[in-house]
Amino acid sequence: MNKDIKVIGIDPGSQNMGWGIVQESSGVLKLVACGIIRPKAKEFSLRLGEIFSELIEILKLHKVDEASVEDIFTHKNVSSALKLGQARGVAIAACALYKLPVYSFEPRVIKKNLVGNGGAEKSQVSFMVSRLLGVKEDWGVDAGDALAAAICHLNSRRMTLLTKR
Amino acid sequence: MNKDIKVIGIDPGSQNMGWGIVQESSGVLKLVACGIIRPKAKEFSLRLGEIFSELIEILKLHKVDEASVEDIFTHKNVSSALKLGQARGVAIAACALYKLPVYSFEPRVIKKNLVGNGGAEKSQVSFMVSRLLGVKEDWGVDAGDALAAAICHLNSRRMTLLTKR
Repeated sequence: MNKDIKVIGIDPGSQNMGWGIVQESSGVLKLVACGIIRPKAKEFSLRLGEIFSELIEILKLHKVDEASVEDIFTHKNVSSALKLGQARGVAIAACALYKLPVYSFEPRVIKKNLVGNGGAEKSQVSFMVSRLLGVKEDWGVDAGDALAAAICHLNSRRMTLLTKR
Repeated sequence: MNKDIKVIGIDPGSQNMGWGIVQESSGVLKLVACGIIRPKAKEFSLRLGEIFSELIEILKLHKVDEASVEDIFTHKNVSSALKLGQARGVAIAACALYKLPVYSFEPRVIKKNLVGNGGAEKSQVSFMVSRLLGVKEDWGVDAGDALAAAICHLNSRRMTLLTKR
């Protein structure tokens, strides 16, 4: 239970892929690193390749234990769903390369977990992330969402361990 | 121009991921290997992880030069588009790991290239793949589509090289 654990949260996107790593040590959460991958190539497959390469560099550097990736089952239209899906697939593949267990949470589940309201505003989520990690919010929206996904998994993991006792 | 080249074609899918490797030597096409990856896990991220692991094993074994991945811009519904997108993202990530140039072709472009008709039936495409490779059609539909994607890229590549002369 008290073993340190490091989780990467990922907010998939083909324009902006948010990521954030949170460590839990004896129940205390700490921000390790976070950022947003913004691929530069124009061609879509090349953009996906850039995202993959950056993600595996991040995973190599930080040696995380588990991953929490935002999941989406509905979307505004088919064409953007296909793009978002591909970005998420790349994120899952990067985690698979490092044999990380991947947990998936829908945005409303993450919001409910952190703020207590599945329909919470992004600013409320970011504020709560900042409070829980004890650091000033100076990340972009996508990195904030990624950190929220990581914290959501750590919270849900802690609850599971407690109820198993 | 006469250098041998090996291309993997991929027909993305989260249930069945078709793949087929075709080698071109002095303008002659040859089937190297083909198959269908059918992940066994029930959980979707695990299925994607299985597809990724199998694909990188195939790429490691066959040392291909380039990849041709079927692309889709429209789909019947958002939910299946998100799944298909993720499967395609995983395929692109596997190619990115081996730094393969990735070429994308829509199904109607592949059909037009092979059969001369963008609305051709799958059976017509498979028949043409079999004729071009000089082997009996004993692959599944998804592997046939993957081989068609590989041949489409080889044809389009040959045309580009010829017009560049």
